[in-house]
Amino acid sequence: MSLTAIIAGRGALPLALRAALPEPALICALDGFAPAGVAADIVFRIERLAVLLDDLVARGVGRVVFAGAVQRPQLDPALFDPKTAMLVPQLMAAMQAGDDATLRAVIAIFEDWGLAVAGVQDLVPALVPAAAVWCGAVTDRDRADADRAAAIVAALGAVDVGQGCVVAQGLCLAVEALPGTDAMLASLAGLGPLRPDPGRGRGLFYKAPKPGQDLRIDLPALGPDTVRRVAEADLGGIVWQAGGVICLDLAGMQAQAAAAGLFLWAR
Amino acid sequence: MSLTAIIAGRGALPLALRAALPEPALICALDGFAPAGVAADIVFRIERLAVLLDDLVARGVGRVVFAGAVQRPQLDPALFDPKTAMLVPQLMAAMQAGDDATLRAVIAIFEDWGLAVAGVQDLVPALVPAAAVWCGAVTDRDRADADRAAAIVAALGAVDVGQGCVVAQGLCLAVEALPGTDAMLASLAGLGPLRPDPGRGRGLFYKAPKPGQDLRIDLPALGPDTVRRVAEADLGGIVWQAGGVICLDLAGMQAQAAAAGLFLWAR
Repeated sequence: MSLTAIIAGRGALPLALRAALPEPALICALDGFAPAGVAADIVFRIERLAVLLDDLVARGVGRVVFAGAVQRPQLDPALFDPKTAMLVPQLMAAMQAGDDATLRAVIAIFEDWGLAVAGVQDLVPALVPAAAVWCGAVTDRDRADADRAAAIVAALGAVDVGQGCVVAQGLCLAVEALPGTDAMLASLAGLGPLRPDPGRGRGLFYKAPKPGQDLRIDLPALGPDTVRRVAEADLGGIVWQAGGVICLDLAGMQAQAAAAGLFLWAR
Repeated sequence: MSLTAIIAGRGALPLALRAALPEPALICALDGFAPAGVAADIVFRIERLAVLLDDLVARGVGRVVFAGAVQRPQLDPALFDPKTAMLVPQLMAAMQAGDDATLRAVIAIFEDWGLAVAGVQDLVPALVPAAAVWCGAVTDRDRADADRAAAIVAALGAVDVGQGCVVAQGLCLAVEALPGTDAMLASLAGLGPLRPDPGRGRGLFYKAPKPGQDLRIDLPALGPDTVRRVAEADLGGIVWQAGGVICLDLAGMQAQAAAAGLFLWAR
């Protein structure tokens, strides 16, 4: 079996992934975005991506998996090696076409080096929950709100915006943009009651990959902290796309949701 | 010339509209949403809409115009008169299909009574600015951000969400949902710098009616207060759809924008 390389960004996912893999794996950290509490096997810069790729091939790596949060890094033109510089036009064109196109271009470059790109859900399915109600109970009103939320996220995805929204009683209370899930949920906390009739359902936070997104990279993620924030925003639960969202600590999410009276539903 | 009735919600628009009309007009205020500082000629309830419509016809009203903000009122089933009750199935079906459908259904009911429904822009074009840069200067970067913002609001409109968003350097920083413009702009204030390179443009707030929205009702509105909030959110200016957004006090907006160094652009 060939070696696996984890292209690691911030957060706990890279280590959890390595722990769950049956075979040893190299951790390759993007300079400035290394996961906390781990000594990376390789630290690399985008400007020297070709050097990393050659190195991985030389070490006998056959498969890579992307894991963890990375923001667009600042690039330093002086640091590019010639081989990576040749990739720049391809990447620049993709970056102007949006985040999805950028990620697809990155995958294509790895594949051009003969490296297979696997998704977290391919390697460790337990980290990406399948369809089920994982905590509490889901009502017909929640199902209707989830349908509406899924339609909203799909429409947003078409313009390459966000992966989440909040819907209560058919009304869209919030939409996720660049500042992310936490900022969106925090913005609801101060608003007071927006639902016409609190008895008709508390509303839900919905999370999904963008439609058409390559599921091998940049899957959205949920954790116990998300559950806490959803409770603070006075919502009734969390719904996410089954097989499309990473839950690093589903047991922790379930405990937190049960304590707060929230439902968790992968749909 | 037949009489005009202003179906008035909250805010300063109903009075400004009456002042700008060449002929006298009746102010009909929805109970609970009467504009401040004005004695309404008629106060009505949705549950007795047919009574209002009969009354308007009897008074010789031939034309109505909707003006001012109204939230979904709480309806009391005990208050319906028989004629209005007959309209309920039609309205309920429309309400389930979204805000746009609801407003179109309301217009259709007025027209069924022989009342012409005019838009603010038809009666007083000066309240709905035409295409122009009304303050400051617009750069190519601002034009690109405005294009992206218009595409985002169009995509949102397809799922009946919001009428505004914030874009900076091609990135969507915020999307307007039920809580409205002020809440969206306030949510940006606490986030610190989100733009990768502040020198490349401060970003803009974009406002437009929903695509396909009937422009005779519920046009979005901007005012000097919006300009102040946009400045507080550290954005570079405001862009709105020419002919589709009400500016009650364009002169006040221009003064505020000039003082804060913002641009105002109806595009």
